[in-house]
Amino acid sequence: MGLIVQKYGGSSVANTARLRAVAERVVRTRREGHQVVVVVSAQGDTTDELIRKAHELTPNPPRREMDMLLATGEQASIALLAIAIDCLGEPVVSLTGGQGGIYTDNVHTKARITRVRGDRILRELAAGKIVIVAGFQGITVEGEDYEITTLGRGGSDTTAVALAAALKADMCEIYTDVTGVFTADPRIVPQARKIPVISYGEMLEMASLGAVVLQPRSVEFGAVYNVPIHVRSSFSDEPGTIVKELTLMNGNGNGTETGEKEVLVTGVTHDTNVAKVVLVSVPDRPGVAARIFGALAAERINVDMIVQTTKAEQETDLLFTISRDDLPRASEVVRRVARELGAKDVLEDQTVAKVSIVGAGMVMNPGVAAAMFQALADCGINIQVISTSEIKVSCLIDESRVVEAVRAIHRRFLEENAPGPVRAAATGAAATTAAAAPGSARATASTAASSMATPTAAAGSTSADPQPGATGSAAGTW
Amino acid sequence: MGLIVQKYGGSSVANTARLRAVAERVVRTRREGHQVVVVVSAQGDTTDELIRKAHELTPNPPRREMDMLLATGEQASIALLAIAIDCLGEPVVSLTGGQGGIYTDNVHTKARITRVRGDRILRELAAGKIVIVAGFQGITVEGEDYEITTLGRGGSDTTAVALAAALKADMCEIYTDVTGVFTADPRIVPQARKIPVISYGEMLEMASLGAVVLQPRSVEFGAVYNVPIHVRSSFSDEPGTIVKELTLMNGNGNGTETGEKEVLVTGVTHDTNVAKVVLVSVPDRPGVAARIFGALAAERINVDMIVQTTKAEQETDLLFTISRDDLPRASEVVRRVARELGAKDVLEDQTVAKVSIVGAGMVMNPGVAAAMFQALADCGINIQVISTSEIKVSCLIDESRVVEAVRAIHRRFLEENAPGPVRAAATGAAATTAAAAPGSARATASTAASSMATPTAAAGSTSADPQPGATGSAAGTW
Repeated sequence: MGLIVQKYGGSSVANTARLRAVAERVVRTRREGHQVVVVVSAQGDTTDELIRKAHELTPNPPRREMDMLLATGEQASIALLAIAIDCLGEPVVSLTGGQGGIYTDNVHTKARITRVRGDRILRELAAGKIVIVAGFQGITVEGEDYEITTLGRGGSDTTAVALAAALKADMCEIYTDVTGVFTADPRIVPQARKIPVISYGEMLEMASLGAVVLQPRSVEFGAVYNVPIHVRSSFSDEPGTIVKELTLMNGNGNGTETGEKEVLVTGVTHDTNVAKVVLVSVPDRPGVAARIFGALAAERINVDMIVQTTKAEQETDLLFTISRDDLPRASEVVRRVARELGAKDVLEDQTVAKVSIVGAGMVMNPGVAAAMFQALADCGINIQVISTSEIKVSCLIDESRVVEAVRAIHRRFLEENAPGPVRAAATGAAATTAAAAPGSARATASTAASSMATPTAAAGSTSADPQPGATGSAAGTW
Repeated sequence: MGLIVQKYGGSSVANTARLRAVAERVVRTRREGHQVVVVVSAQGDTTDELIRKAHELTPNPPRREMDMLLATGEQASIALLAIAIDCLGEPVVSLTGGQGGIYTDNVHTKARITRVRGDRILRELAAGKIVIVAGFQGITVEGEDYEITTLGRGGSDTTAVALAAALKADMCEIYTDVTGVFTADPRIVPQARKIPVISYGEMLEMASLGAVVLQPRSVEFGAVYNVPIHVRSSFSDEPGTIVKELTLMNGNGNGTETGEKEVLVTGVTHDTNVAKVVLVSVPDRPGVAARIFGALAAERINVDMIVQTTKAEQETDLLFTISRDDLPRASEVVRRVARELGAKDVLEDQTVAKVSIVGAGMVMNPGVAAAMFQALADCGINIQVISTSEIKVSCLIDESRVVEAVRAIHRRFLEENAPGPVRAAATGAAATTAAAAPGSARATASTAASSMATPTAAAGSTSADPQPGATGSAAGTW
């Protein structure tokens, strides 16, 4: 008998049949003797549909009103799931984010949970009820104005893990449409294998780098409050992937725990939701980067890779990547700042993608990065930008080559008789990877020129703080 | 410069083009110098769609969860309208029912507004904003649980008038898809005319009797707080129908105010959302009616017409009508009580309809009811039940004859050279109408046998209190 938080994604509750299946699973867990708190997302593509409606009116709707709009998706889901559970004869109550005590800051559409007040949920649980809480949303408390906020895409994961932390749950189960976290996207790499256990750190990188099963911030919550997270399928009973605290001593769970040989690379990820922005010929003065990235941070636009290239005296090119969704807003901000700074031009490119390898064992093996670059070079894939941390290496490439790239890297590291890292010749890039301080929990994203491929703008690159004032992952993605 | 509350129905905000048109009208009103509070319903058939989703799970979903579900419809509307108004450059804020200070009792799906706290709205207005409030919904405050409630079908009208009353608005404009209140449904009667001015009392009867342009409860709010209500089309600028205080001295606005001959009948209404329930052979004991109608009232099922017939010694038949939506729940309640009372059978009939005439002048003219019965008799339409108040006469007939009946009655009273009331021969039914005390604001529904048609169950009818403890209109409809 324990307290279990279960989170079901939009595809798991997309229609009546699936709602019933989820209701049955929840009730089964309850009848096994557990207290159950359920977090749900909006049904199917409801959120996209609502966004479409707003965008029919304007490409830039006020964010407070977007939250008002989007919050309805989850509110409908919790009611429908409560109705489905009620049909099975179990006492149940649905709660909005606000009713569930999810308090956030006032940054609409990308709010952060600041406090979880669990008293109402605990009272309902004590009364024997299954409690369903709307994911993705919360409220602010300023004066007496309770404003509705949303947490950004995938925010329901964060709601679930934050609730699990606040309620001291024994397990946070994240139900999704895949059976766990894989060594690569199985739709691209048929040889991809499920990872049985993974550390918070690796999961954080995987999630930040494009493995869409978990929102990065939810993993951070899990890590800080040590909430074990079980990522599994709502369509089957097979065990999924457990995300939990793992020391380097017991490895990444993919190898040592099962007694197999040590695995250096846990997984390969890719992300096509990437846009590249280049400020051409910015005056090379102190404070330039701070101006640009400060302005973007103020708009809560997350910057990922950053490369600054000194190309002529007193002039520099500044390249960075963001998610494509943010490009319209970022473009506005960047063009304004670029004018103020006197930059020559702003270029945008939406045809790029990022491939990455993640593995806790990597830090001990400088040859890993080199092997990745070699795998790409063997396919003739050009690397535009490289970014590394102690447990990951990311390469920006042309979007059209991404499938090929992921397959090649997976083959190199994660399949039968994979050749693995390059043990010898420490290349320039590999040296950069090794240079990241192994002791620092979160290395600032560093960028490096690869000696094996020719990054278009990475020559003479310098490291830059991706997002002043923001707590960020290694890649500065959030 | 005044404060205007505008309410837009679901069809007025059904899609992007219509949202834009509403936004333009709101902004125009604001730019004319008025403060504007806007109340909106859910878009198009959103509410029906949500109900359909719930009913796919179960025919009897928990009502609290239905409110959680249905409230999302209006919440999406207010956000979309706020976005549309923001596009036009006017400061705007949307508020849920709770944020807008609409407090209700805790009777889910049929809650009543108990208090309107206008401070947040007034603060936003003072800041120069257009304020959009979600119609149809409110919150309860019990302890610290803010539970979401809805007001029942058409509840947005009530929200608008209640807000207009609380904010002491100069006018409450109800925008709908018709251009005003008509002497009959123009879809059925091409000769129907728009009524320029109508009293609260007449509007209340019209609304209760099936003229769906205004929710009856909203008219009651208007009457109690003397809020002028302008019912008009959101698709044109032509004036609609003004609902306001009218004394008998200045007539019903349809006649005397314009200097024309006095009009006895203001309009003809019909309602096909009617079901008939008959308890066959109930023991004729005191308290039987109270048991049945008390049980229905406890379920918030509104009873309309009631006829009790003594058919044998110590046995009585009890007939009443309710709205068809309520039939499944009512059936359950009635069959339980019928068993307890030892009734022989319970019959249900969903093929009935109600036609009514409404007019403040009627009370002075006993021949009006008789003329209505004659009009039906001339068509060979059988009257099953009659119910009268001082300003209306209703007849229950077979649903298949309703169009014919409305046309015949409209022709009799409201078209060129209409023969009008029967001035002579005061019939039994007309006598009953005349017997209703002209001074009492709300007569209890009385039923009577007509001497011109043969009601199936009205012989020896007695008057009964339709809904103990509930404040009701003349027909006991709410």
